[in-house]
Amino acid sequence: MTSEALTVPVIRADGRTPDQLRPISITRGWSNQAEGSALIEFGNTRVLCTASLTQGVPRWLKGEGRGWVTAEYAMLPRATNTRSDRESVKGKVGGRTHEISRLIGRSLRSIIDTKALGEITIVLDCDVLQADGGTRTAAITGAYVALADAIRYARENKMLARNAQPLTDTIAAVSVGIIDGVPMLDLPYVEDVRAETDMNVVVTGSGKFVEVQGTAEGAPFDRDELNKLLDLALMGTEQLAAIQRETLAEAP
Amino acid sequence: MTSEALTVPVIRADGRTPDQLRPISITRGWSNQAEGSALIEFGNTRVLCTASLTQGVPRWLKGEGRGWVTAEYAMLPRATNTRSDRESVKGKVGGRTHEISRLIGRSLRSIIDTKALGEITIVLDCDVLQADGGTRTAAITGAYVALADAIRYARENKMLARNAQPLTDTIAAVSVGIIDGVPMLDLPYVEDVRAETDMNVVVTGSGKFVEVQGTAEGAPFDRDELNKLLDLALMGTEQLAAIQRETLAEAP
Amino acid sequence: MTSEALTVPVIRADGRTPDQLRPISITRGWSNQAEGSALIEFGNTRVLCTASLTQGVPRWLKGEGRGWVTAEYAMLPRATNTRSDRESVKGKVGGRTHEISRLIGRSLRSIIDTKALGEITIVLDCDVLQADGGTRTAAITGAYVALADAIRYARENKMLARNAQPLTDTIAAVSVGIIDGVPMLDLPYVEDVRAETDMNVVVTGSGKFVEVQGTAEGAPFDRDELNKLLDLALMGTEQLAAIQRETLAEAP
Amino acid sequence: MTSEALTVPVIRADGRTPDQLRPISITRGWSNQAEGSALIEFGNTRVLCTASLTQGVPRWLKGEGRGWVTAEYAMLPRATNTRSDRESVKGKVGGRTHEISRLIGRSLRSIIDTKALGEITIVLDCDVLQADGGTRTAAITGAYVALADAIRYARENKMLARNAQPLTDTIAAVSVGIIDGVPMLDLPYVEDVRAETDMNVVVTGSGKFVEVQGTAEGAPFDRDELNKLLDLALMGTEQLAAIQRETLAEAP
Amino acid sequence: MTSEALTVPVIRADGRTPDQLRPISITRGWSNQAEGSALIEFGNTRVLCTASLTQGVPRWLKGEGRGWVTAEYAMLPRATNTRSDRESVKGKVGGRTHEISRLIGRSLRSIIDTKALGEITIVLDCDVLQADGGTRTAAITGAYVALADAIRYARENKMLARNAQPLTDTIAAVSVGIIDGVPMLDLPYVEDVRAETDMNVVVTGSGKFVEVQGTAEGAPFDRDELNKLLDLALMGTEQLAAIQRETLAEAP
Amino acid sequence: MTSEALTVPVIRADGRTPDQLRPISITRGWSNQAEGSALIEFGNTRVLCTASLTQGVPRWLKGEGRGWVTAEYAMLPRATNTRSDRESVKGKVGGRTHEISRLIGRSLRSIIDTKALGEITIVLDCDVLQADGGTRTAAITGAYVALADAIRYARENKMLARNAQPLTDTIAAVSVGIIDGVPMLDLPYVEDVRAETDMNVVVTGSGKFVEVQGTAEGAPFDRDELNKLLDLALMGTEQLAAIQRETLAEAP
Repeated sequence: MTSEALTVPVIRADGRTPDQLRPISITRGWSNQAEGSALIEFGNTRVLCTASLTQGVPRWLKGEGRGWVTAEYAMLPRATNTRSDRESVKGKVGGRTHEISRLIGRSLRSIIDTKALGEITIVLDCDVLQADGGTRTAAITGAYVALADAIRYARENKMLARNAQPLTDTIAAVSVGIIDGVPMLDLPYVEDVRAETDMNVVVTGSGKFVEVQGTAEGAPFDRDELNKLLDLALMGTEQLAAIQRETLAEAP
Repeated sequence: MTSEALTVPVIRADGRTPDQLRPISITRGWSNQAEGSALIEFGNTRVLCTASLTQGVPRWLKGEGRGWVTAEYAMLPRATNTRSDRESVKGKVGGRTHEISRLIGRSLRSIIDTKALGEITIVLDCDVLQADGGTRTAAITGAYVALADAIRYARENKMLARNAQPLTDTIAAVSVGIIDGVPMLDLPYVEDVRAETDMNVVVTGSGKFVEVQGTAEGAPFDRDELNKLLDLALMGTEQLAAIQRETLAEAP
Repeated sequence: MTSEALTVPVIRADGRTPDQLRPISITRGWSNQAEGSALIEFGNTRVLCTASLTQGVPRWLKGEGRGWVTAEYAMLPRATNTRSDRESVKGKVGGRTHEISRLIGRSLRSIIDTKALGEITIVLDCDVLQADGGTRTAAITGAYVALADAIRYARENKMLARNAQPLTDTIAAVSVGIIDGVPMLDLPYVEDVRAETDMNVVVTGSGKFVEVQGTAEGAPFDRDELNKLLDLALMGTEQLAAIQRETLAEAP
Repeated sequence: MTSEALTVPVIRADGRTPDQLRPISITRGWSNQAEGSALIEFGNTRVLCTASLTQGVPRWLKGEGRGWVTAEYAMLPRATNTRSDRESVKGKVGGRTHEISRLIGRSLRSIIDTKALGEITIVLDCDVLQADGGTRTAAITGAYVALADAIRYARENKMLARNAQPLTDTIAAVSVGIIDGVPMLDLPYVEDVRAETDMNVVVTGSGKFVEVQGTAEGAPFDRDELNKLLDLALMGTEQLAAIQRETLAEAP
Repeated sequence: MTSEALTVPVIRADGRTPDQLRPISITRGWSNQAEGSALIEFGNTRVLCTASLTQGVPRWLKGEGRGWVTAEYAMLPRATNTRSDRESVKGKVGGRTHEISRLIGRSLRSIIDTKALGEITIVLDCDVLQADGGTRTAAITGAYVALADAIRYARENKMLARNAQPLTDTIAAVSVGIIDGVPMLDLPYVEDVRAETDMNVVVTGSGKFVEVQGTAEGAPFDRDELNKLLDLALMGTEQLAAIQRETLAEAP
Repeated sequence: MTSEALTVPVIRADGRTPDQLRPISITRGWSNQAEGSALIEFGNTRVLCTASLTQGVPRWLKGEGRGWVTAEYAMLPRATNTRSDRESVKGKVGGRTHEISRLIGRSLRSIIDTKALGEITIVLDCDVLQADGGTRTAAITGAYVALADAIRYARENKMLARNAQPLTDTIAAVSVGIIDGVPMLDLPYVEDVRAETDMNVVVTGSGKFVEVQGTAEGAPFDRDELNKLLDLALMGTEQLAAIQRETLAEAP
């Protein structure tokens, strides 16, 4: 992808080139309870996304004729290599959990026309069953599939106005980072902890940015590095968008 | 099973006879992170059980040369037909969750020789991914498989004394109940809500009781009904014990 | 009671035979604030039970014309031999407290015809002032007296429909257990901690089971032991029911 | 007591004169678990006070050779005319509870020589079983008796240095207030809610002030009113001190 | 002030005589967001007081045609010499914070005619930016200025009935204490920690008491000491009232 | 700044051009308690930043010879136009607070050489006294000044190794956004709520990125818009870095 990378091809621990996604799998309709659901896998990262649809909206939105989409992210205690205490047992939701839940909610709302949705609430639950880096980007990508199916459900059950098109685009996300000076796409945990810069990028199906969150974990990064990371992210999200389209093209 | 049942065969909504278990499936080693794990299914009920093993014991047990086994049960918010708020968001663990976690912990400890285990702690996390009745009994039955594999892991990694046999028996659990006067085995949600009496029975592989928890949801029950329910439960747990044995007989 | 017990009579530390209750005392109307109240003593165990009656029902029950009975159990910090931290100070209700509160609530609801009660809520508070084993069974037995008086209060204050009979039966509870192989009735703390099997049984005045909760604390128990424990429990609850009747027979 | 009061004798709803205490009763040793205990009654107000004694002190006091005395106050949910939610269920201790717990702790510490006590902690739990005004003053007065017995226990069990005299005085408390312009002693609930000024006064056996907490509930009060209230409070606490002495004079 | 003090003039560490206030400064309208605000300084103690005014009252007061005034006090984590953990992070409000919030609320309500205020709620937030003793008395004194300006705002914005006079008086507070036997006015932190007796006195502009809270931190105090402290407090609050009047006399 | 902006000069509500910062003011040493402090103002936004320095590090970092820098952000309840409930009263820290605290901590750590710092902990408290947009960027910019002074304090008090240079660079932050299609620098609240895209950028004194957080609040943004926003942010942070240098150049 970069000229350096081309002359001395970098091969990652899992055999990928720097610009390659991990194997992506989306099991649509994994749950028989939710109006929409998907078990998404980015390599060993597995996130169960469900979309719960209810009539009505939160109190602060009542009477405006608009819908609401929100998200909650969480991790099972042993999703990770060592067990973490449950947030329910600790009695509070941690900062990281809050931050990611808010990111997912904002991302999915960015492609929703709440007027077209009408007074419906959709809660997207993204529970990480197994974590190996990129859980928030997998969650966003999977939540889109669950959301799309919940909206299909609403349409089939006459909960949507005829011809209403609440989805204005598709949405997917991927992580990128710089490891040993090389920009790389879709970092698993072992790469994530070593990355000098770590960036999560949320992109619409039409290729525009919804979120760009870059953080220097080690040395600060310059404009050139930022640009290379954005190039990689756009390439990755384009592939994810294609997988989402294929998944949703089949009969549910 | 009962003479009445034989003369007028009762067929349940899902096609089973009163004394039949739902299809049982145990996917051993579902998680690549935990020392032991199992995804167990009792019909549509799906519980992910992981066993997390660490050196050392809680402070109150230090220096006694004994190990500790404990359990935490939880449900994903959309495991059920309507979404429940997360306990982490509510900031407290509910009574039902507490009660079931304690039941699972006691049940699994009943077949552990903590002296033989040595100063090791095993936490059993039972997370209900999809709920359709019998989640606590599925959790106990699946947690046994995860526990057995965690102990195998300890043995392979020299964390157990040579020849130590911390498992004294196997353990499985099943629900039974009386619906329209008929004692039935392994109730799915639709039966559970209609049951006059509901009982959860935890039984060792050698056929002895570890827990008997019977509750009259409607009319109180008499000695005869209690006995019929216990008969069914012993039959069901015997079958579950056989499935556990087969599962664990294969190479992990 | 058992053939062994008869040949070699077992005398317990407090001088009782295995099938004897501790001295039972019920002080009806201990509180001048509550609509019904009782200070109940099972030996040194002392539980203050109050019944608080209010018009109306919780939101989820509104408009169904049915009443609601619920219970909360708690222990004073120095009810026990060593002081425990207050749950209010810890900021959360513990699992044991939750579990017992739920058991008391279910037990008392089992003898209530909520239709006959009408849209009335009764909260049963069972506060353990001094603990010496059997606090949950004393609480259920005492709560019945408080409940009966609260219903009498409702009748006298025209809050009940004429001829309404919301109480369908009486209810009492006792603990039983196996100590050194001998089944025993109504365990004080010193016996409770040594019991191999511990069982709490809730029985109606007409001798039917509402709850059977047996737990193997040490070795699992077999069908024969279970039966002997149930025999003892039925004998004990019959005596408790008689004491309840006598207590309530007097003018309040 | 005041010249006005003498010319037009005021008789209170419960038959007392303005300068009269309610009937006071102290049941010493009510609990068989605590090292010291007292059930104290100021009329219908009933507070169970226990003193829990342990070796050692909180971390921040370690190594200074001094002891620690602290207090916790709470009310049973139905101590009052209408039921209050439990603070454990609400998940937090309310401001009033905090404030009274701190007052009791400070009051009892004022008569303790912590050096003479040595590295011992005494927790005073004051649980209001029935409330009819003056619960904090009853709690302080009863907690003194429990504390004195806990110290006697420490002495009998060789936990105190020989000749150590950790109690430097006795302590008692009473409420006073102005109702319809008349200063009155020891207000029950019906007077308390009508008082223009409400004052709680904590006084040592030697007649010195430890706490004076006067609050204008209605109109502000002037210097003359303040003085009349202090006169009444000193008279009341002198009588309470005498009752404490009598109670403790008997063999425990 | 006392005859002893006059013969041997005591000079305090900061150069004041025992009966002198610290330099007092009130910056009215410090905030451009609140309806009323004041940054008040008692020496190095700095408290930001804001008054937030909203239409309507809490549910329990609805329909009575009366207003509500309440207060919340808090300290920034590094207001003090060593950093304290945030109460938001600890997840609960401490006893001291609760107690002071309640004191401020009661004090300010004592000079409010809630009928004249009408159905308006005013929340007084008193945040200690820098603490050097006397934070609660500075908070009360500053909150009065913020409250007066919020009421002026209500009048200018036609939220008050014409001619309504909700403020019945002014209010100020000061601390007094006995240090080395000498009664002193307005204690900074270094004196506060050494005081044998510590008293906070809240006084109306017309010189009447609203709160008298005296606590023996060391030896109990007698009637004579109490009187000397009250003399000092009345002198101090008279001066504070004059400063409040001057501050509010200027155009806002 | 952009060719469009140059041809049709946009003047903002507060009179600024799109590429202009608000008036910036830094009052160094505002607190006499903290080791470092600054009251920073970006227009009407006012944030009090204190740096609290203590010997030692959190438990998880002990023995590594490295220091720790962390941050906590909070807002006074009436910092904003309408009052918010206190997080301490709600009993939990909200997602936005968590997220910003984490951002500030990461940003400041990016210019710290924790090895050079040694086993010292610095907590940066950023409390928003008045909010008018850009509070997180003001907090980062002010926290740098407080941090620099705390390190100067450590050096003067021999808490740092001789020649240790724990600060590797300076750090500042600014918000940028697109309003009505025009990229703008340093948004006050009125612009912030209207922005289609909102970005916070944290930049070192040497002009490299530490954090880039761009969010599409309305329409997604393209690469060109992103680049224009980054240009503005680099210009703004360069000016802030100059103000920081001037502030710190003076004697403290």
